[in-house]
Amino acid sequence: MKTLKIAALVVALCLGILGYSYAKPDHPDDQAAIRTLLTNQQTAWNEGNVDAFLEGYWHSDELTFSGSSGVARGFIAVRERYKKSYPDRQTMGKLDFSSLEIRMLGKDAALVLGHWHLAREKGDVGGVFSLVFQRFPEGWRIIHDHTSVVTPASAAKEK
Amino acid sequence: MKTLKIAALVVALCLGILGYSYAKPDHPDDQAAIRTLLTNQQTAWNEGNVDAFLEGYWHSDELTFSGSSGVARGFIAVRERYKKSYPDRQTMGKLDFSSLEIRMLGKDAALVLGHWHLAREKGDVGGVFSLVFQRFPEGWRIIHDHTSVVTPASAAKEK
Repeated sequence: MKTLKIAALVVALCLGILGYSYAKPDHPDDQAAIRTLLTNQQTAWNEGNVDAFLEGYWHSDELTFSGSSGVARGFIAVRERYKKSYPDRQTMGKLDFSSLEIRMLGKDAALVLGHWHLAREKGDVGGVFSLVFQRFPEGWRIIHDHTSVVTPASAAKEK
Repeated sequence: MKTLKIAALVVALCLGILGYSYAKPDHPDDQAAIRTLLTNQQTAWNEGNVDAFLEGYWHSDELTFSGSSGVARGFIAVRERYKKSYPDRQTMGKLDFSSLEIRMLGKDAALVLGHWHLAREKGDVGGVFSLVFQRFPEGWRIIHDHTSVVTPASAAKEK
C-alpha cells in the first residue's frame, strides 16, 4: 500500500513538472511582464534616461542590434550606438511604442513586433521593430533588436 | 514488488520525456535543417524561382515581414512584395547569404541572423536580416522576417 502511495506521488510530481513546463508558454503573466518592460523603457526614454531605457536589454556580449547600419554586437556597442545617435533630449524627442504584438516562442522566449515613433521639434521619425525576448532568472530581457526607420514615402510606395 | 516496478517505470518514463524536451534545444540536426532550408532558398532564388524560394516561409496569414516599408502580413502579402520588388532575373541578381548565426530559442523556435547580398548588373544591394523560425510537423519554417538594406555609407557612418 505504501509503494502504491509513492507511485501515485511520483506520477503526480512528474505530471506537475510536465504540466508546468508545457502550460507555461501561454501564461498571461509573461506577456504582462514584457508589456511592463516596454512601458518602463518608454517612460525612461521620455525622462531622458537612456541608461534606464537600456535596462530592458540583455547585459551580455551576445546581445545583438540589427538595422540599416548592420549588426551591433554586445551591450556596450548597443549603448554606444544609442548614446551617439541620441546625444540630447531634443534628439530623443518623445517616444511612443504602438501596435505591440507578442508571440510566445516556447516557455522562455518571445517575439515582439511593434511600431516606434519619436515626436521631435526638428522632425518626427519612426518605424518598426522586431524584438526577441528571453526569460532569465532576473526576468525577461531583449536579446535581439532589429529596428527599421519607415519613411512615409516608402510606406506609401508599398501600398 | 509489482507496484515498485510500476513506480520505477513511471519515473523512468517521466525522466525520459523531460530529458527529451529539455535536451532537444541543442540538437545539431535542427541547425543543419535550418541551414539546408536557407541554402535551398538561395539556390531557388538564383534559378529565378521565387515560388520555390518562398517555400521556406510559413504559409499562413500570420506570417510577418518587417522592413523599411513597415509590416507585411500574411503569406500572400509577402509573396506579392517579393514579386513586385523583383519582377525579373536582372532585378533578382545573384543572391548570397553569409555570416549565418543560428540561436535556438527552446526546442521549437530559432533566431537566425545573417547578411544578404544581391550581385546585379544594375548595381549590387545588400544588408542584414533577422529570421524567426518555428518547428512545424512538416519541418522548420520562417514565421517572421525583418530585413534591412545596409548602404556602404550608413555602415561606414556607424564605425
